[in-house]
Amino acid sequence: MNPVVEQMNRRRSVRNFSGKPVDEVHLGRILLAAQQAPTSINGQQISLVVTRNKETIARIAEIAGGQPQVAGAEVFVTVVIDYHRTREALKSVGAEQVIAQSAEGLMVGATDAGIMLNALQTAAESFGYGTTAIGGIRNDPQAMIELLGLPAETFPLVGTTIGVADDASLAQVKPRVPLATFAHMERYDAEAVRRGVAEYDRQLRLWWDEQGLTQMPSYSESTAQYYSRVYFPKVAESLESQGFEFRDD
Amino acid sequence: MNPVVEQMNRRRSVRNFSGKPVDEVHLGRILLAAQQAPTSINGQQISLVVTRNKETIARIAEIAGGQPQVAGAEVFVTVVIDYHRTREALKSVGAEQVIAQSAEGLMVGATDAGIMLNALQTAAESFGYGTTAIGGIRNDPQAMIELLGLPAETFPLVGTTIGVADDASLAQVKPRVPLATFAHMERYDAEAVRRGVAEYDRQLRLWWDEQGLTQMPSYSESTAQYYSRVYFPKVAESLESQGFEFRDD
Repeated sequence: MNPVVEQMNRRRSVRNFSGKPVDEVHLGRILLAAQQAPTSINGQQISLVVTRNKETIARIAEIAGGQPQVAGAEVFVTVVIDYHRTREALKSVGAEQVIAQSAEGLMVGATDAGIMLNALQTAAESFGYGTTAIGGIRNDPQAMIELLGLPAETFPLVGTTIGVADDASLAQVKPRVPLATFAHMERYDAEAVRRGVAEYDRQLRLWWDEQGLTQMPSYSESTAQYYSRVYFPKVAESLESQGFEFRDD
Repeated sequence: MNPVVEQMNRRRSVRNFSGKPVDEVHLGRILLAAQQAPTSINGQQISLVVTRNKETIARIAEIAGGQPQVAGAEVFVTVVIDYHRTREALKSVGAEQVIAQSAEGLMVGATDAGIMLNALQTAAESFGYGTTAIGGIRNDPQAMIELLGLPAETFPLVGTTIGVADDASLAQVKPRVPLATFAHMERYDAEAVRRGVAEYDRQLRLWWDEQGLTQMPSYSESTAQYYSRVYFPKVAESLESQGFEFRDD
């Protein structure tokens, strides 16, 4: 093994923070390290908005659906798809940008936002901080856009909390679906996926029960609670009002 | 500093491989470490397809637009948005899945694919391998779907090469846009972005020139080549034929 993989294997979402500060020097290094993550065509179509103001963090917690795990963080970093930057770049060479009006533009923007999110968390965890990815900001993207002053052709897709974990309430590393049903060799194996879901339901049930959390839903029950409805119903509308479209050429 | 951030600061895309093999034990550990990355609602709506067959890797290189950097890799991992798994989960508790028909479902799927891509690369690099993210598979998603046998409500969004770098042709770490124009404090600063683009054009020009690559385009020129057109024009069509829609509730 090595320190990187050891850190990755220990990764869990930290939802209770101690209130200890995030060091300014660490924060700068986290941002710089994350910025070396790859972006499609080196377009760097991502911006971050770093929130340290406690009132703003409390407002983000509200927007994300009233999440105390957000309100308790020392730092919140919003990962923003940023085709405003590239529009400026194209303008400087006399070209007109059309990519934001395409499905490709949206999909690659979201992919790069995910890459950046993981890089931020990996760097933050390397300095001993805890993090949780927060998709809840898509509950009301327009409110985030106003709060952070985001221009057209940008979109606040996801964020992460950063803080010092409260060790007393640190969660155990959560098991995942069996590796053989997640990583397919050469071709997708639908039968393995079906079996994997059933096996994971049993494993996750045992894992919750071991911690005395017998009321927690199984994997199938919990995904059903979310995916049988569109739980964030303003994403398309907000993207459209920011100048994004989802179409081919 | 620490070993994780040191690795992240050294990160560069590796496009020339030595032909040395990727160790099977390493590969297993890379996949397991990456699997601990977070997914929205613990939905684990990602599958990987691991390609080691050289003919299949050559075919993926073709699909991605004839990229020799793909053909030379030892392993190609395709990151697949997988709402087939969650459909199976919902079915097992008698619920009907609708999430794949929403903008939210597509955006969160792509975000989680990006998170997984970065986790895979971080783990692979920790074992000394080189990687490059390959978005080119979206050039012809339908061809990837057939090649990998992907069912409805899955989509091959992005991939990564893994191999042992050819040290003789290793690229330098590429500079990024100035940190202050990438990481905004509290609110987005459009003026900083405008200045940052101009400054980065100068910096990247110097960086290329130092390496004798005077023919390489500036940041603005290179983004203009891509973003003034929809360079992958089959993404929406292919998503639709896989059962995805982009709408709100």
